[in-house]
Amino acid sequence: MLIVQKYGGTSVADASRIKNVARRVVKEYRKGNQMVVVVSAMGDTTDDLIALSRQITDNPSPREMDVLLSTGERISSALLAMAIKSLGVEVISLTGRQAGIKTDMVYNKARIIDVESDRMREELAKSKILIVAGFQGLNQYGDITTLGRGGSDTTAVVLAAALQADLCEIYTDVDGVYTADPRVVPEARKLATITYDEMLELAHLGAGVLHPRSVECAKHYGIPLHVRSSFNDNPGTIVKEETDMEKDMVITGVTYNKNVAKLSVFGVPDQPGIAYKIFKNLADKNISVDMIVQSAMRDGINDISFTVAQDDLPVSIESIEEIVKEIDAQGYAHNADVAMVSIVGAGMNSNPGVAAMMFGVLSEEGINIHMISTSDIKISCIVKNKDAEQAVKALHKKFGLDRIGPN
Amino acid sequence: MLIVQKYGGTSVADASRIKNVARRVVKEYRKGNQMVVVVSAMGDTTDDLIALSRQITDNPSPREMDVLLSTGERISSALLAMAIKSLGVEVISLTGRQAGIKTDMVYNKARIIDVESDRMREELAKSKILIVAGFQGLNQYGDITTLGRGGSDTTAVVLAAALQADLCEIYTDVDGVYTADPRVVPEARKLATITYDEMLELAHLGAGVLHPRSVECAKHYGIPLHVRSSFNDNPGTIVKEETDMEKDMVITGVTYNKNVAKLSVFGVPDQPGIAYKIFKNLADKNISVDMIVQSAMRDGINDISFTVAQDDLPVSIESIEEIVKEIDAQGYAHNADVAMVSIVGAGMNSNPGVAAMMFGVLSEEGINIHMISTSDIKISCIVKNKDAEQAVKALHKKFGLDRIGPN
Repeated sequence: MLIVQKYGGTSVADASRIKNVARRVVKEYRKGNQMVVVVSAMGDTTDDLIALSRQITDNPSPREMDVLLSTGERISSALLAMAIKSLGVEVISLTGRQAGIKTDMVYNKARIIDVESDRMREELAKSKILIVAGFQGLNQYGDITTLGRGGSDTTAVVLAAALQADLCEIYTDVDGVYTADPRVVPEARKLATITYDEMLELAHLGAGVLHPRSVECAKHYGIPLHVRSSFNDNPGTIVKEETDMEKDMVITGVTYNKNVAKLSVFGVPDQPGIAYKIFKNLADKNISVDMIVQSAMRDGINDISFTVAQDDLPVSIESIEEIVKEIDAQGYAHNADVAMVSIVGAGMNSNPGVAAMMFGVLSEEGINIHMISTSDIKISCIVKNKDAEQAVKALHKKFGLDRIGPN
Repeated sequence: MLIVQKYGGTSVADASRIKNVARRVVKEYRKGNQMVVVVSAMGDTTDDLIALSRQITDNPSPREMDVLLSTGERISSALLAMAIKSLGVEVISLTGRQAGIKTDMVYNKARIIDVESDRMREELAKSKILIVAGFQGLNQYGDITTLGRGGSDTTAVVLAAALQADLCEIYTDVDGVYTADPRVVPEARKLATITYDEMLELAHLGAGVLHPRSVECAKHYGIPLHVRSSFNDNPGTIVKEETDMEKDMVITGVTYNKNVAKLSVFGVPDQPGIAYKIFKNLADKNISVDMIVQSAMRDGINDISFTVAQDDLPVSIESIEEIVKEIDAQGYAHNADVAMVSIVGAGMNSNPGVAAMMFGVLSEEGINIHMISTSDIKISCIVKNKDAEQAVKALHKKFGLDRIGPN
């Protein structure tokens, strides 16, 4: 088998954990498997490098930021290769460039557009284990790009697709995907399987286990992901197209995200092209907008509210200030003291009343809902930041997630 | 003018020092100069990375070591570029690869074989300041190599040659090249000029200011180097072909090196090819041998002694053990508790009696000499480690280095 494994930052946080990963990798290799291992930066390395850049300037060049941040994964890849070599196995570390990962031009949030896998195939043909520095690639100028937070997951999935891997394992510090964050809901259960779509919603909605883009890629290429812990041998959660065991579950998980800020533009003229102007200007500044809600028209004017990541709030405010003048809106407001609470499940589609039940639970708990957004398989509510955990606990219980088992 | 500047690790040790370097670079740029700036890794970064690798294995793969170590200069180059950009000047960081630095295949101690300067010329043509990560290049496999300790000096000189720079400045934490280490000899004076050959000897003999290979390259390409401090605007020392001001000095400097170990092979058969076998085996293991002394023949057998860097002692002992058996020598010994004390000066060539005077000074101080080695412009003695500073002080005084001035 050709196995692609990805180890996150906590799995390679120090020398002893790197040696632990080396033993796991070599164990699979000695069973006769071909191994391609993608690594994140050690522990807090990326945060430390960002902090260093902030000591230099508040507004670092995106290109230089990628040169800086890409060093973290190079360090862990070289160290893991050393650790594996010291176990007597042939191994080679490859940077994003050497692994042939070609990206678009967007520094800090680049997308992989191609993988030239010649070098990887050559080294695999020599029976070497490959250690690939995650999170990075090369653009058409030969400059280093990074894929954004959590991008190593995407590296792993894209390599699994390019090499037609038989298995893609994502190793992290938790045992798999849970019905809710076990730190908030002790009764939360590990899911044996989850669909790509459900996982995508969970990832978008704040469950930190997988990077959303990696789930999109896995779905696109039809690659099952096995999310599991590098600290034990427990089976984790398989992310795939169709689940079977828990088909009868209405919802799969409850999640929340506190890295959310809400912006509202008031008194927007009800004319075609206005929403385009607002969100085009945000997109031009590389801001991802999540929830968008437009209130019913009254007197020919609308209110439009939306959410962004808290990090993006300052730039979003700038953007909105520009646009409010241009479109002659009455004003705007922003609020970072909010959180998004969501329920996700492929089953809610065929179960009417799930939304009503969610709103009922929140009402019983005395939690006020600021915004609502729904899709086929999720319902999200913006609530006060301080209410998030209480909402998650109540929803987990009321939807019976603690009762359905075993896993 | 096209100016190549190189800043050492202490000059970019933290954010405030990096900003200081940024201001110095921008000042020269605003005078209308083209600027190419080579940086070392910040402060102790390289040592920290080496320590990290030692936590993984005592015998790290040289290839992976270079992947690891090359990150240090990438970090400082990105940060310096950010700092310069925040001063409102166009700037771009380039890795060794992007600067077109091609090396041979020897990991950890690679030699630059070519510079493909197209990208640098393109960026200079756009009026950008170039920040080049020192110490690294790419070999024919597209793998990262490093140039060995102090390799950033060599990067600077080679770039100055490739770009036909008008000036090559080496910034460090001292004001220039001194007649002796001022920490040992407070009366030591800064030299206004020094020849390449003298500087080469001083560098080889332990004066840490410049990397010997960089001096070789500078001599080869006829590039004058200005060695000076990044912490003030004092003129430093010019290293060039001929000096003028101090032509009448017999010796230029006194130096010592404690990173020395002595090995002796006893009872070597006096046959052609024996020395070749000894030193070929060391060379094959990439050990640089410094002093070599062969004692006079007695009864058809010789003793051969030589020195290596202390780091290379374990591998050197292995090498000698192999060879002692092969050539049927009587045995070997090693001693790491030694230091090399040297006097350097182009003038000693035409002044008979310099060697005798050196031995006389050491004798007066009661310092025993283990080995002697001479060249046209230097005399080195191996003494006990603990005698090194005393020897340097006495020689500096007796050769009148504290009296010749002003500088």
